[in-house]
Amino acid sequence: MPGIVRWVIVSSLRKTSLCHLWGGDGMQSKVSSTSELNPEKLKLLKSVSTATLATQLFRRGFRNLFMQGVAPLAKPNGENMVGPAYTLRNIPAREDLDVLDIFLDPENPQRNAIESVPPGYVLVQDCRGEKSAASCGSILTTRLKIRGAAGMVSDGPVRDSGVISELGFPVFCAGASAPTNIIKHHSIDLNVPIGCGGVPVYPDDIIVGDIDGVVVIPRQIAEEVAADATEQERMEEFILDKSQNGARLAGTYPPDDGTRAAYLAWKAQKPQES
Amino acid sequence: MPGIVRWVIVSSLRKTSLCHLWGGDGMQSKVSSTSELNPEKLKLLKSVSTATLATQLFRRGFRNLFMQGVAPLAKPNGENMVGPAYTLRNIPAREDLDVLDIFLDPENPQRNAIESVPPGYVLVQDCRGEKSAASCGSILTTRLKIRGAAGMVSDGPVRDSGVISELGFPVFCAGASAPTNIIKHHSIDLNVPIGCGGVPVYPDDIIVGDIDGVVVIPRQIAEEVAADATEQERMEEFILDKSQNGARLAGTYPPDDGTRAAYLAWKAQKPQES
Amino acid sequence: MPGIVRWVIVSSLRKTSLCHLWGGDGMQSKVSSTSELNPEKLKLLKSVSTATLATQLFRRGFRNLFMQGVAPLAKPNGENMVGPAYTLRNIPAREDLDVLDIFLDPENPQRNAIESVPPGYVLVQDCRGEKSAASCGSILTTRLKIRGAAGMVSDGPVRDSGVISELGFPVFCAGASAPTNIIKHHSIDLNVPIGCGGVPVYPDDIIVGDIDGVVVIPRQIAEEVAADATEQERMEEFILDKSQNGARLAGTYPPDDGTRAAYLAWKAQKPQES
Amino acid sequence: MPGIVRWVIVSSLRKTSLCHLWGGDGMQSKVSSTSELNPEKLKLLKSVSTATLATQLFRRGFRNLFMQGVAPLAKPNGENMVGPAYTLRNIPAREDLDVLDIFLDPENPQRNAIESVPPGYVLVQDCRGEKSAASCGSILTTRLKIRGAAGMVSDGPVRDSGVISELGFPVFCAGASAPTNIIKHHSIDLNVPIGCGGVPVYPDDIIVGDIDGVVVIPRQIAEEVAADATEQERMEEFILDKSQNGARLAGTYPPDDGTRAAYLAWKAQKPQES
Amino acid sequence: MPGIVRWVIVSSLRKTSLCHLWGGDGMQSKVSSTSELNPEKLKLLKSVSTATLATQLFRRGFRNLFMQGVAPLAKPNGENMVGPAYTLRNIPAREDLDVLDIFLDPENPQRNAIESVPPGYVLVQDCRGEKSAASCGSILTTRLKIRGAAGMVSDGPVRDSGVISELGFPVFCAGASAPTNIIKHHSIDLNVPIGCGGVPVYPDDIIVGDIDGVVVIPRQIAEEVAADATEQERMEEFILDKSQNGARLAGTYPPDDGTRAAYLAWKAQKPQES
Amino acid sequence: MPGIVRWVIVSSLRKTSLCHLWGGDGMQSKVSSTSELNPEKLKLLKSVSTATLATQLFRRGFRNLFMQGVAPLAKPNGENMVGPAYTLRNIPAREDLDVLDIFLDPENPQRNAIESVPPGYVLVQDCRGEKSAASCGSILTTRLKIRGAAGMVSDGPVRDSGVISELGFPVFCAGASAPTNIIKHHSIDLNVPIGCGGVPVYPDDIIVGDIDGVVVIPRQIAEEVAADATEQERMEEFILDKSQNGARLAGTYPPDDGTRAAYLAWKAQKPQES
Repeated sequence: MPGIVRWVIVSSLRKTSLCHLWGGDGMQSKVSSTSELNPEKLKLLKSVSTATLATQLFRRGFRNLFMQGVAPLAKPNGENMVGPAYTLRNIPAREDLDVLDIFLDPENPQRNAIESVPPGYVLVQDCRGEKSAASCGSILTTRLKIRGAAGMVSDGPVRDSGVISELGFPVFCAGASAPTNIIKHHSIDLNVPIGCGGVPVYPDDIIVGDIDGVVVIPRQIAEEVAADATEQERMEEFILDKSQNGARLAGTYPPDDGTRAAYLAWKAQKPQES
Repeated sequence: MPGIVRWVIVSSLRKTSLCHLWGGDGMQSKVSSTSELNPEKLKLLKSVSTATLATQLFRRGFRNLFMQGVAPLAKPNGENMVGPAYTLRNIPAREDLDVLDIFLDPENPQRNAIESVPPGYVLVQDCRGEKSAASCGSILTTRLKIRGAAGMVSDGPVRDSGVISELGFPVFCAGASAPTNIIKHHSIDLNVPIGCGGVPVYPDDIIVGDIDGVVVIPRQIAEEVAADATEQERMEEFILDKSQNGARLAGTYPPDDGTRAAYLAWKAQKPQES
Repeated sequence: MPGIVRWVIVSSLRKTSLCHLWGGDGMQSKVSSTSELNPEKLKLLKSVSTATLATQLFRRGFRNLFMQGVAPLAKPNGENMVGPAYTLRNIPAREDLDVLDIFLDPENPQRNAIESVPPGYVLVQDCRGEKSAASCGSILTTRLKIRGAAGMVSDGPVRDSGVISELGFPVFCAGASAPTNIIKHHSIDLNVPIGCGGVPVYPDDIIVGDIDGVVVIPRQIAEEVAADATEQERMEEFILDKSQNGARLAGTYPPDDGTRAAYLAWKAQKPQES
Repeated sequence: MPGIVRWVIVSSLRKTSLCHLWGGDGMQSKVSSTSELNPEKLKLLKSVSTATLATQLFRRGFRNLFMQGVAPLAKPNGENMVGPAYTLRNIPAREDLDVLDIFLDPENPQRNAIESVPPGYVLVQDCRGEKSAASCGSILTTRLKIRGAAGMVSDGPVRDSGVISELGFPVFCAGASAPTNIIKHHSIDLNVPIGCGGVPVYPDDIIVGDIDGVVVIPRQIAEEVAADATEQERMEEFILDKSQNGARLAGTYPPDDGTRAAYLAWKAQKPQES
Repeated sequence: MPGIVRWVIVSSLRKTSLCHLWGGDGMQSKVSSTSELNPEKLKLLKSVSTATLATQLFRRGFRNLFMQGVAPLAKPNGENMVGPAYTLRNIPAREDLDVLDIFLDPENPQRNAIESVPPGYVLVQDCRGEKSAASCGSILTTRLKIRGAAGMVSDGPVRDSGVISELGFPVFCAGASAPTNIIKHHSIDLNVPIGCGGVPVYPDDIIVGDIDGVVVIPRQIAEEVAADATEQERMEEFILDKSQNGARLAGTYPPDDGTRAAYLAWKAQKPQES
Repeated sequence: MPGIVRWVIVSSLRKTSLCHLWGGDGMQSKVSSTSELNPEKLKLLKSVSTATLATQLFRRGFRNLFMQGVAPLAKPNGENMVGPAYTLRNIPAREDLDVLDIFLDPENPQRNAIESVPPGYVLVQDCRGEKSAASCGSILTTRLKIRGAAGMVSDGPVRDSGVISELGFPVFCAGASAPTNIIKHHSIDLNVPIGCGGVPVYPDDIIVGDIDGVVVIPRQIAEEVAADATEQERMEEFILDKSQNGARLAGTYPPDDGTRAAYLAWKAQKPQES
């Protein structure tokens, strides 16, 4: 087949299973479906970088799962933010509907989102990248923390950014902006597929955030990506060490057969971690 | 209360009625709910400008119901595009899900949208303002026309723009772009509230398009806006005539008491139209 | 009036008083007109957030008084920046007019602005959001501080950002950029109404800056906004406390009748502050 | 001085004369000061391209006098738009000030601008490049035409774009947008230096518009630029002819000594035009 | 391999062959290498749309070969622009280097590009998407036409857009802008790989332009893409016909087995074209 | 020639010498040509601000040598980054060429850049301002540091930003982004003239970075700019001191004859530094 470029994409994903994934069964089924993921494997995601994860995703053909315009509000301390996505969709505000009294409605989707996000989940807000109003402020974020959420992600900014950045709660967003959300947003849907930072987010996708930003891992491949990323970082630790000791990049990064063999020997001698 | 600026917005919108409006009852109810609007009054919207409509909306406190970045693909001929909104929501594409085979699924929302838009409705697509892929092309647009849709609106571009611009079918969009929609979009929901061109669009809102672009009229006020806009344009016809004949703007536009009286006299003498 | 959304904006602004406000009487009158505001009430603005102020402004119908693209250059320490606006307008530079010698002119508006801003005022620069040249540098900013200005705001960047961020002087701007202002700007007017960060700024409007950014409070409502914002924050302190102790948002934030009564009881027991 | 790059800009501009130019003397003096320019020389500007003018300005050291984001609303017919600038400055709107009643004020600067622009002048509006609201609509534009203005330029869009584009009146702007100006703009000053399309515009500068867009010629050099541009186009006519007949660019464009001599001979033989 | 997403990319492209493709052998070899492509097959590209080509490229895994921000300057008449790429690279201008005298240099890359583009080739300019200065004007474009180029593509605008749009020569660009190229550009390299409109362009890639814009086909697959696109359009002609006659999209577009069989029968009956 | 504005730029640049500068002779000659610059004079660049350098460049007619959108990744400690430019050019990626295996090629330009940048040089990457993928990550940056590079500059972001910001190695870029470079970039050329941050960068130009960002000094004027900037800062030290002690700006900044004389006296008394 000379001169021919050929790509074959084989996917076992079927629409029906996708529908099942975030479909009509309600939150309960989602929580349980999450528990089917191996928690030990997911724990690995706490200590690999989003850079490594982006490479593992690229290796599988995914070029667009790192959010644009979304950054940690405060410098992360140690571990990554990791958790399945619980989503909130916003559309542009309308002056007659989006008044302060809207929050008196106990079914207001934004307030509902805060009170219904399952423990361990990350609330992900679709704010259409709008930078001129806040996604939320310190009271809602505090409430999210108390309810046991794993973090909050938005492609809009937050207000009370000083207070929020000192909560010890992972928030990834588009910076700070004081105006209340309803100046620009009408919250409309809970836990449906959304876009955030230009990236598709399906409920229960695994969200990982570190100092570089936020990556979305499709739930179906989260375990294998976690394992492969961990192995990749172990090898890069070895490579970095060689590189710091004078090895040229060629043959080292990426490793040729010799480097690979040396790595395996080094790895065999290391005490096991996980 | 001299020297006091006062805004009063009175709307009969209640949240419950809003939910009812685009809620779970399905398309049938929507079609019938539309027939409740007075078709004679809506017909007035065919011949008033979006500029006048934007002013009538502003008068009622709405500052953000004209779409940004959305223009007629071809120069409109005569009448405006007018019809209730039937919406399609897209989120960013994902490489494993958004492959060409997706269209083999008879339930694909994009294809479904084309085949289910009720006659007389305008299909409004939320493409997140993404300019690098098409919302749709000539086959789907032709099918829309054949099915009796009133027009198509998207905040993304279309492909086959040459063919589409000669269909004699109103299309308002972000210009032309050849790549197929699934490079950037995954169609996900039919007839839910969306954003389009930065504006909230609720199903059954009345969409009006002319050479300046597209305005969204909340369904609940469509009849009164149509009537007031028609009256506004009648007066502006008189004002323009005076202005062309030398009247200075002050006292004429906006009219003072004298001009207003002269207008009423002129109007009384005119043969009735509608 | 059940089911009715109602907005009422009552403002004591009259056009004539506005003209008077920044009109021809010169700076002296402006300084004295400022002294008419109750300094105790304005002092409250030092310790309420711009988020709360933005909500109070929204409550009064103002949706666009928080500057876009303007952030604190250094993390604020404690108190807000608060002061009436003293404005500088810039237009694009022209190569023959905007040469280094322009600064030899003792009437150069930029240099004049620095030397004439009254103590306690905030210098607000309209730089048209231009990010590729500095609004000013360390010498002018130091001089502002020495002259007793309350702060500096620009929708362009500053140069010498390292030095300026350590002056202990509040600067809110669009980051850092080394080129001198005259590469892009020609300073043209002092203390006229301007736009800054997309927001109208009239001379003597009250400018407040905190970690989220900068809000502009129309002078006529500054006292009442200060009072209402202070009360709002007191209630939010109570709400946050309840929320941290397990209260769900519904009924708490915003407060229902029960929460409101509890708040009033709590407030009655608290020792008075201001 | 071989191998030396040298730029010399000689301008007769003195700061004092500039101040005088748009200073306090009022409109009358401005009209008469315009009549000091040689009308025959200015007439040349009707038939040279903005491309040639931009090159003549660059030759004099001006790199930024062509407006960005400003295009003819309708395809120009034959002659360029040419006239001195009469300017209108807008700042962002504020909801309490910018209500429809503002136009009842006979001193409203926008309405005033329309009624006071001297015949033969071009009204140039600073709309801060804001694309989401109109600069003006068909009634004001018709009035401008009737009053004898030479054209209208704005870095914002217009409404009623269909009507305006058929008026036979030169309008250069940022396209079409239906919302009324006061949604985004507060008109504030008449005939002061402004920015428009990123370019400085001083009252009485000479504005020229053709199919490529709008160029601003500093009044002081308008006559010499007009003359030199005319001569440049004459030579380019000769060069284009040679080029079409097979001459390579080198030696032809720009012309070497031989081509220059041939041009002079060709020019000498041509019947005189102006 | 349940639940596993798997993509396999097999490419016979080797770096050495790529280097050969646009490498050091000079233009002569490139011209002859082009003649190796089957001219009959390439001719097919004159009458298929860029929309169809973008789909064929997507089918092969290419998501980013349609230029952004590049449109036809004049409405294309009939046939597409088709030809191999001949490239010109520009970098930002520097004031001391980019003076008008630069064009006296017979080796100036911009002028050289015009005089060396082989007949039938498309000149593609990398202008970094810069919209504030022209890529070229009417004299150079006329010269390109006379020299037999197939067209000109730039991600910057052109000057003299009125003249150029009437040349009957295909120009695809970012609209019109009067300032001369050297205000923003320094031409630096001929026929090296570049970016244009966000897309990689390697010399000799096949460039196709129609009303939707410009697509770049990697040379190695140009023949097969041309053939497959032609077949796709033939089938879409049949589908459009069925769709216009009432067939629903499901089963028709994309075709199911029945529609495919009907198409083959229809095709067998049609008189052969190519 | 009173009242005359005059610009004279005298440069010893000749086109031939420019060609020589970055032409075909290879890296060796470049290294030696650099050693011709006076290292003592260049050392001055370590302690003058980019703000001062931008002014010195403006004084010589250069308005566009400060990079836009490029900032220090970590707060600089003390000395500036200073070194001659060694450049890497990237074009947009193509899916068939830019696969992970590309790095196995020992001639890959990106990897080559890291291993061939001469000690003391700054690697400058043209990433076309693309913010959605990394320019490089921690392993390559560590390798750059070990090889003795003076720093890294890119108009794209980096990945592993946390690790890199703690390397103690100067990196100036567009923030952080996790995806690997080949999702968006194909590295193509080493040490050719490029654009970076909107600025022309010729190999061996002197790159200086501080907290405000990065300025590019044409090599031919680097020594004189270094000397003049040092003198300018000495005078500004004196001016700042006077200004802090109450001197008004007029007469002080810029200095009039009196201030200049006082400065010279102050300077004469100061102990010599360099």
